[in-house]
Amino acid sequence: MVTTTTIFVGELFGTALLILFGGGVVAANVLNKSKAKETGWVLITFGWGFGVMAGAYFALPLSGGHINPAVTLGLAASTGEWATVPVYIIAQMLGAMLGAFLVWLVYLGQFRDSPGPFLGIFSTEPEVRNPVQNFITEFIATMALLFLVVATGQNQALALSGVGVLIVAFTVVGIGMSLGGPTGYAINPARDLGPRIVHQLLPIKGKGGSDWGYSWIPVAAPLLGGLAGGLLGAAVQNMAA
Amino acid sequence: MVTTTTIFVGELFGTALLILFGGGVVAANVLNKSKAKETGWVLITFGWGFGVMAGAYFALPLSGGHINPAVTLGLAASTGEWATVPVYIIAQMLGAMLGAFLVWLVYLGQFRDSPGPFLGIFSTEPEVRNPVQNFITEFIATMALLFLVVATGQNQALALSGVGVLIVAFTVVGIGMSLGGPTGYAINPARDLGPRIVHQLLPIKGKGGSDWGYSWIPVAAPLLGGLAGGLLGAAVQNMAA
Amino acid sequence: MVTTTTIFVGELFGTALLILFGGGVVAANVLNKSKAKETGWVLITFGWGFGVMAGAYFALPLSGGHINPAVTLGLAASTGEWATVPVYIIAQMLGAMLGAFLVWLVYLGQFRDSPGPFLGIFSTEPEVRNPVQNFITEFIATMALLFLVVATGQNQALALSGVGVLIVAFTVVGIGMSLGGPTGYAINPARDLGPRIVHQLLPIKGKGGSDWGYSWIPVAAPLLGGLAGGLLGAAVQNMAA
Amino acid sequence: MVTTTTIFVGELFGTALLILFGGGVVAANVLNKSKAKETGWVLITFGWGFGVMAGAYFALPLSGGHINPAVTLGLAASTGEWATVPVYIIAQMLGAMLGAFLVWLVYLGQFRDSPGPFLGIFSTEPEVRNPVQNFITEFIATMALLFLVVATGQNQALALSGVGVLIVAFTVVGIGMSLGGPTGYAINPARDLGPRIVHQLLPIKGKGGSDWGYSWIPVAAPLLGGLAGGLLGAAVQNMAA
Repeated sequence: MVTTTTIFVGELFGTALLILFGGGVVAANVLNKSKAKETGWVLITFGWGFGVMAGAYFALPLSGGHINPAVTLGLAASTGEWATVPVYIIAQMLGAMLGAFLVWLVYLGQFRDSPGPFLGIFSTEPEVRNPVQNFITEFIATMALLFLVVATGQNQALALSGVGVLIVAFTVVGIGMSLGGPTGYAINPARDLGPRIVHQLLPIKGKGGSDWGYSWIPVAAPLLGGLAGGLLGAAVQNMAA
Repeated sequence: MVTTTTIFVGELFGTALLILFGGGVVAANVLNKSKAKETGWVLITFGWGFGVMAGAYFALPLSGGHINPAVTLGLAASTGEWATVPVYIIAQMLGAMLGAFLVWLVYLGQFRDSPGPFLGIFSTEPEVRNPVQNFITEFIATMALLFLVVATGQNQALALSGVGVLIVAFTVVGIGMSLGGPTGYAINPARDLGPRIVHQLLPIKGKGGSDWGYSWIPVAAPLLGGLAGGLLGAAVQNMAA
Repeated sequence: MVTTTTIFVGELFGTALLILFGGGVVAANVLNKSKAKETGWVLITFGWGFGVMAGAYFALPLSGGHINPAVTLGLAASTGEWATVPVYIIAQMLGAMLGAFLVWLVYLGQFRDSPGPFLGIFSTEPEVRNPVQNFITEFIATMALLFLVVATGQNQALALSGVGVLIVAFTVVGIGMSLGGPTGYAINPARDLGPRIVHQLLPIKGKGGSDWGYSWIPVAAPLLGGLAGGLLGAAVQNMAA
Repeated sequence: MVTTTTIFVGELFGTALLILFGGGVVAANVLNKSKAKETGWVLITFGWGFGVMAGAYFALPLSGGHINPAVTLGLAASTGEWATVPVYIIAQMLGAMLGAFLVWLVYLGQFRDSPGPFLGIFSTEPEVRNPVQNFITEFIATMALLFLVVATGQNQALALSGVGVLIVAFTVVGIGMSLGGPTGYAINPARDLGPRIVHQLLPIKGKGGSDWGYSWIPVAAPLLGGLAGGLLGAAVQNMAA
């Protein structure tokens, strides 16, 4: 049975798993003395995708496995059920912070042997800094995510069988491969803001700035893209009902 | 319930998702200031494959998830149901154009920082330009695709469970890896012609020519290969019925 | 209904698909003017694995989807049903030859622009030539394959759902990644001998020798490994029945 | 029916398959005259993951497919059923040793052509040698593994369908990609200790030391992480029951 408590705990641990895998795969790719050093974008996108799979699957029976405020917002808008939105988002933020802290623990020795800066392990940074362009990129990518979240969510049998989680996870791998080039595909406000706060707080030598000037884009654009994608995606899927 | 409207909307959005992911992964691989710059063919083939998965899965309950005129033609020939073919193909063409336009929006900053030409992000180009050879390559690759589309389509339970979409998506990854070397595996007239029109129309600096001289091959060869593969594949599968 | 005719046709087309993808991915990796030139072993192993998936899935309702004489032999030994073994193996050999011919057609322009030799696109070659070592490698790899073929075959529901085919396909990706280093993992007599005959027959400039001195190992070792793996794997699985 | 005998045989062969694939993919990546030489971390993580898939799937009907003492311990702690734990762990250790021996046989020619040392093919080694840091890394990674093992194990229908094994296998790929950088992700005492004993015993020229000073960490940390992950993961999952 899904209750406020199961939602909180499911989203907390599910989002922590997401960030543990996702932050971890970037750490593995960029830090010195890592066995995966400079493996590249195939590693990073599959690592994040399997993090989505692990986190969403673990949280599925507890909370539905959103692990992303943009998903929560998009589904709330499409179903009209808003009561539990705050507990989802608070748990996602705390889970993302927990996950980022665990990444630091796992790679402590590597952080000490690398010069920094380290923000890229925690949060996204654009390749070309242009707020309008970066917003559009994150907006479209999150819309695409919600289209698939809505489509798999329509099918209860699929969701329970585990295949739906695989399809959403591979969708996120695909979004990373295809749409992640310009901004690093936050597509999830908690994924970006939670670890950015942890980056600000942790005493890591050479960590560099937390780039708060950019931080609103990977929050606002995924929220609005999730809202648009949830509403439009559900409206389209419901035409077949 | 599948109606003309659901077919149109499903194919429109499904094909847009396909091209958003597929064009996007090429952009990610070739444009400057992309985090995935020069990752290579593993990235490109998985990116396109997950685009097939996302687009076909989203469209599945609305239209059956063809998102490819060669699939529509091959299935029409094997079932004898031709009435809805025009709406499928019109929606696929419009969807492919929409997807190509979205790729341009997502990578706007990267287009501006790269010298071009950019046709490869939109449409296919052969490595060795020889119409007969290029036609044969696309014909055989599309036949292989239809064999699997027909085989998964026979199994209604599979299609609904989502596993059929995964198998077709991985088939497309495999076609890209194995048969994409010579021509870039259009295997879908809308995937090639729609974005080529968008390439012609968009005002991108340094975009280069749209190569209309080659454009008929990735239309005609997939259509005929889809027809042949649909007819032969269905005839073979029906032997087990 | 499975008949001698459906077995023949299923194995013919299924094995042709396997070799079209498998030979194709090697061609894509080694020939000049291929978009996948020198991508490496991740490409090759996934390309072969998706070829197994495509071929086995297409043939599944017609013949059970063996597409490999070592699988046919291992299953016959474990079930005691030998009557259809000859039709399986003849169809697999003809299908493998058809697939190798199609690879040549798909990559015709690339063959003409590459210096050769080309045997590696058709058949396997060892890195260290030592009959005893090469035999042991192929024997163990084929035993591992049959363990999984028997395990997935035990579960009829799984086989029909398509998940069994995915598991066998990923097993073959894993065998290629893990055990393919020394000999190129034939693990299938038809996969190696059929294309070797085609290599001997086709008039390709600079193709080099067909290495008949090595050719008995990728036939004999998979057959004996398949026999051992089928018998032992089935005996172990039956302990749980 | 699961008996002490089926548990022993299932875990023996399942763990042998795991190590055959896992040790094999490292050998493929590091030894001279291997076709996969220096392919990198994507190869290694997928190779290990498909080894988990193959071993766990083969053992599933016989023993539940633990193939890892940390999984056995975590599940025993969460269910309170301790009677069969010794037979699981003995079989896992023997299976891991058998698998490591088979890797040596498969790559015999490559071992002879490579200078060594070879411990990395058998067991894990840290990049930064620091017992506390290495322990934490392995502890957290194994906790993550058990969270997913518990979550998939809750769902009997999923486990039987084969999708659960895929999800656990991809979780292990993700753990390797994301958390494997510092220590090489043992996350399994039998996976590390069994092959280390075989490395000590086998007469391989230039094999180097077996690094017994580090050997307790990839045993103790996964056991404690498995215990913690099994208890916490099950407690959380049971909240939804």
